[in-house]
Amino acid sequence: MPRARKRSVVVLGSTGSIGRSALEVIRAHPGLFSVAAIAARGSVDDFVEQVRVLKPRAAALLDPASARAARRRLGRVRTDVREGPEGILSLLELPGADTALVGISGAAGLSSTAAAVRRGMRVALANKESLVVAGPALLREARRTGAEILPVDSEHSAVAQAMRAGRREEVRRILLTASGGALRDWPLSRLRSARPEDALAHPTWRMGRRITVDSATLVNKALEIVEAVHLFRLPPDRVEVVLHRQSVVHSMVEFRDGSVLAQLGKPDMRLPILWALAHPGRPDWPEFRIGLADLAHLDFAAPDPARYPGLALGWRAAKEGGYAGAVLNAADERAVELFLEGRIRFTDIVPLVRAALDAAPRSSSARGGLDAFLEGAAAADAAARAAVDARARGLEGRMAS
Amino acid sequence: MPRARKRSVVVLGSTGSIGRSALEVIRAHPGLFSVAAIAARGSVDDFVEQVRVLKPRAAALLDPASARAARRRLGRVRTDVREGPEGILSLLELPGADTALVGISGAAGLSSTAAAVRRGMRVALANKESLVVAGPALLREARRTGAEILPVDSEHSAVAQAMRAGRREEVRRILLTASGGALRDWPLSRLRSARPEDALAHPTWRMGRRITVDSATLVNKALEIVEAVHLFRLPPDRVEVVLHRQSVVHSMVEFRDGSVLAQLGKPDMRLPILWALAHPGRPDWPEFRIGLADLAHLDFAAPDPARYPGLALGWRAAKEGGYAGAVLNAADERAVELFLEGRIRFTDIVPLVRAALDAAPRSSSARGGLDAFLEGAAAADAAARAAVDARARGLEGRMAS
Repeated sequence: MPRARKRSVVVLGSTGSIGRSALEVIRAHPGLFSVAAIAARGSVDDFVEQVRVLKPRAAALLDPASARAARRRLGRVRTDVREGPEGILSLLELPGADTALVGISGAAGLSSTAAAVRRGMRVALANKESLVVAGPALLREARRTGAEILPVDSEHSAVAQAMRAGRREEVRRILLTASGGALRDWPLSRLRSARPEDALAHPTWRMGRRITVDSATLVNKALEIVEAVHLFRLPPDRVEVVLHRQSVVHSMVEFRDGSVLAQLGKPDMRLPILWALAHPGRPDWPEFRIGLADLAHLDFAAPDPARYPGLALGWRAAKEGGYAGAVLNAADERAVELFLEGRIRFTDIVPLVRAALDAAPRSSSARGGLDAFLEGAAAADAAARAAVDARARGLEGRMAS
Repeated sequence: MPRARKRSVVVLGSTGSIGRSALEVIRAHPGLFSVAAIAARGSVDDFVEQVRVLKPRAAALLDPASARAARRRLGRVRTDVREGPEGILSLLELPGADTALVGISGAAGLSSTAAAVRRGMRVALANKESLVVAGPALLREARRTGAEILPVDSEHSAVAQAMRAGRREEVRRILLTASGGALRDWPLSRLRSARPEDALAHPTWRMGRRITVDSATLVNKALEIVEAVHLFRLPPDRVEVVLHRQSVVHSMVEFRDGSVLAQLGKPDMRLPILWALAHPGRPDWPEFRIGLADLAHLDFAAPDPARYPGLALGWRAAKEGGYAGAVLNAADERAVELFLEGRIRFTDIVPLVRAALDAAPRSSSARGGLDAFLEGAAAADAAARAAVDARARGLEGRMAS
């Protein structure tokens, strides 16, 4: 067995949930991985603690005041603490750094992904927006630079693993599994009265607030459909979604000969992180061991379009191409914010997102470079948020009643 | 996508269930496969019909009188109809024939497997005895000649497919699934009164009589443990068995990073046959498409050793090595015959097999050639059957009561 080259990893978003899991994975396999640098938004305490323990060559905080505070507290620790968006992106240029773990959410994550792809790095990609907003442009750039984009989310990691049992041209369809979210057992008629705390009570995964609400609307799967179409270069109608309450089967691939390969595992993000960092190797992790108790009963069902009208937006955005992914992502992010602020109902989220897609101009799939695409996507993003806000104002009066 | 070389297949056991399925697979993909020759035991009508339709260059019947009858009835059909064991084996020497589908059960299948391996062919192996009796010797010979042994049974095919998601050294364990057989829901206390027709009522698969009874004792899984240990070169303690009533998940592989790959599909032997013939390709077969109805509920449970005492004999035989596989196979075949003849009880089968293993001399794992190994195995086989018969005579008086 050939010895894998040791990977030097820049962990972006090191104080978030994905980042902390990534640091755990890296520290558990010191022969395989080292931390080149870490970056975080502004949580000084956690950041300082991580720098003290890991002693990376460099690190960065987005917020300059936090960076200054961190430098003071770190005193004699030799790590070069940088600041601001440029400080974060500069970490990707450290000599020897060959892997970027993009655990930053939102638009900041997208620019990190783009920078890492431009440098031809391995990108362990947890940022959901990157492929949804700019999939084709990022993948074109990756082919040019030799960058590898490996998914760090349980569904796409599962698909990537299962696809190794055949060739891409032999895939009949992929089946993304969905837990169905916190409201899956609510009567349809009650959904309009769901409060933020109801939608945030996810049955199997612990995640950020937006994505937990997205699990309840299934817009998370709509976004994953778009990601899968780009990442695996499949037509949208080859991607399907199946409800699977137990979150044990992370996704499946059906090949055209009728054979289905499924990937199963504990619902723990360290598994796909390890896979993305170590691929094609599979290092030992004794703690992760599936038991019969995990498997005992597995259920699968088709999602009901009446309960999950947001799901169809995924196929729509994937088919429309261009900036439709950017619109879907931004409109949903804004609508979920409004819901969490108590300004719209749970059942308003999807109609607002759909209206933003309806209102967006049809963009022909830009064939220009990555920069031009990102610029167009940013404009589409802003317009989508404005469209959601404008329409939401019409709904707010109703909420008081 | 590189165009695969067209395979010229010798179908051994063409009138049996596996053979007929194989001919269907071959005829459905005329661009990929052709039939070089067919061989059957003695079912003249079916054989003559197959020769008329397929017009292979050569064909053979085991029974010489049947072969003469077939020649008369085939009249002007140009197929060279051969006879006897030598006639069957001679088909493997046809110029251009590169693949043997071994669908003959029992000892005759083993000698066909050995001959095909000696000639360096691809062997699509449905004969269960081959690897159980002579696994290490066959695999050594295959390494010498370049023969490829690809399993034609749903479990090992599933494992072989799932293993493509990683390396052999990275496998933590494989989980062979078992339906539990026809008596899986019977109270333990009633098992001793199970009649042949009870044990033959398999819930999900239609198979031959011996293997259907073996499914009820789980000795089929014991044999599959031995096969898997040889085929995938894994220590016996890396092979586990899990009950799975629905026969949808055909087996699973857990890698050492905690990721589990499972293969699912319709319970139809044409699927693993197609996989073995076309590997590494996956030709389109629109009819095979898994539906949510197939998946709806999947259950997994540990087999109860009190219900399935025969299962442990698999690990035992795999650990003992040498001719223990031959003893396990022969003793079980004989015991099942006695059960089907009404001469012993269902619950006598496993104790008789265990006693045969106890009585067999410990053979050091023979490092000699394939011929020497097969000779030793044949002697062990005969001794095991005699041991079962001797012990069964002691039980027969009791059956009358």
